[in-house]
Amino acid sequence: MALQLYIGNKNYSSWSMRPWVLMTQAGIPFEEIMVRFDSFESDSAFKKALRGLNPVGKVPVLVDEGFAVWDTLAIGEYLAERFPDKRLWPVDARDRARARSVCAEMHSGFGALRSHCPMNIEAALTDTGRLIWRDQAAVRADMARLCGLWGELLAAQPEKMPDGSAPLLFGHFSIADAYFAPVCMRIKTYGLPLPADLQAYVERVAALPGVKAWIDGALAEHDFLDFEEPYRLGR
Amino acid sequence: MALQLYIGNKNYSSWSMRPWVLMTQAGIPFEEIMVRFDSFESDSAFKKALRGLNPVGKVPVLVDEGFAVWDTLAIGEYLAERFPDKRLWPVDARDRARARSVCAEMHSGFGALRSHCPMNIEAALTDTGRLIWRDQAAVRADMARLCGLWGELLAAQPEKMPDGSAPLLFGHFSIADAYFAPVCMRIKTYGLPLPADLQAYVERVAALPGVKAWIDGALAEHDFLDFEEPYRLGR
Ligand SMILES: N[C@@H](CCC(=O)N[C@@H](CS)C(=O)NCC(=O)O)C(=O)O
Ligand SMILES: N[C@@H](CCC(=O)N[C@@H](CS)C(=O)NCC(=O)O)C(=O)O
Repeated sequence: MALQLYIGNKNYSSWSMRPWVLMTQAGIPFEEIMVRFDSFESDSAFKKALRGLNPVGKVPVLVDEGFAVWDTLAIGEYLAERFPDKRLWPVDARDRARARSVCAEMHSGFGALRSHCPMNIEAALTDTGRLIWRDQAAVRADMARLCGLWGELLAAQPEKMPDGSAPLLFGHFSIADAYFAPVCMRIKTYGLPLPADLQAYVERVAALPGVKAWIDGALAEHDFLDFEEPYRLGR
Repeated sequence: MALQLYIGNKNYSSWSMRPWVLMTQAGIPFEEIMVRFDSFESDSAFKKALRGLNPVGKVPVLVDEGFAVWDTLAIGEYLAERFPDKRLWPVDARDRARARSVCAEMHSGFGALRSHCPMNIEAALTDTGRLIWRDQAAVRADMARLCGLWGELLAAQPEKMPDGSAPLLFGHFSIADAYFAPVCMRIKTYGLPLPADLQAYVERVAALPGVKAWIDGALAEHDFLDFEEPYRLGR
């Protein structure tokens, strides 16, 4: 039986994006089950669809023959164990530890970037982004840490991978790139400033087939949900 | 060379408690390096001690022959890989997945419980706890979820383990119990109400030798840090 992945709106759901991109890019087949956001109230269609599946009432949820795995990091670990040949974590033990450190750091950190710049793939909010950049020191601090983190990892990679492509955070695609893919989307939507080499990494991530497929899906949606849209009145 | 674990004050540092308890309870030898909190400003002694070690400037940090692993979840995974015979995660694949789901859920969730009831092992704040319980619906919601989570896991365990002891979340001690140990401390400090069987789990965790050793260390400290003490003017 195929794996099922429950996700929210592709335009908005940054957590859902991670495992979807991971599985798509790594070539792990799965059935996508879209649970469109209506609201997060307990009587919403969204919450009702997840009831009985995941006691936390959030997406993403991976279901493997009736067994539910929730929370992005746990889903990543589950897939890494279930598909060892896909090498979803870096093969080297220290690289793998570092990849886990930066994913866990993303998982509980970067709060200012996440709250001030919610993911909104379809939108171009560069003026809003300039105001956020001017006014929100905590966003600038999150971006400084991000630049340090990406910069250090990318500096340790060869200039080119054996296939001629430019490297990702740990050379080959890994869970870490999937983890930072939504951040790449935010940087593009809000036009947040980055050094050229890191901007090039953002573009490489956006061009990965698994990421491009998600973006295409987001652009094909036509929902406008005000609780996900602090900066617009409509599309 | 021994592993080194950098931690903060035992009375206050809930994140530090997790890997310390994990290693102590599992019998993994390590050198403890206490970085006492003074403040979290960038020129604090605390931040200076971590500089060059961990770019995030937080504890805990595990150092293995000069290689730093930060963030509690990443430290747990690193130790589980490095000491496979210690069975830090449950052995059964689905139990392991579930343990990772609940740890990751703790890692990024339970925000109301964490912010309203900061860990303070030495303090008895049951009156404060009653007011929090009365006024903070989000704390009650976090506790309801916690009861659901613990209740479901414990209900799946045998009444007694082979050695006659009562079971922990996944039977034997695992990363999941270490992850919830600071929550057990909060429940005791603030006297948060729980069903009797779950209160018994809290007492079992508090009585684990690895947890008891941490508590003893916390009680032997005599720091009073106002930024960790929203509810007291002194000891
Ligand atoms: N830590 C969780 C976070 C998941 C999450 O917050 N998902 C959002 C959508 S992106 C959600 O379902 N929100 C519903 C709610 O907050 O009630 C994970 O990594 O999976
Ligand atoms: N997600 C991190 C959180 C670590 C954390 O927040 N540690 C606190 C002490 S309990 C700290 O070092 N705070 C310093 C600061 O916030 O600047 C982890 O799991 O290790």
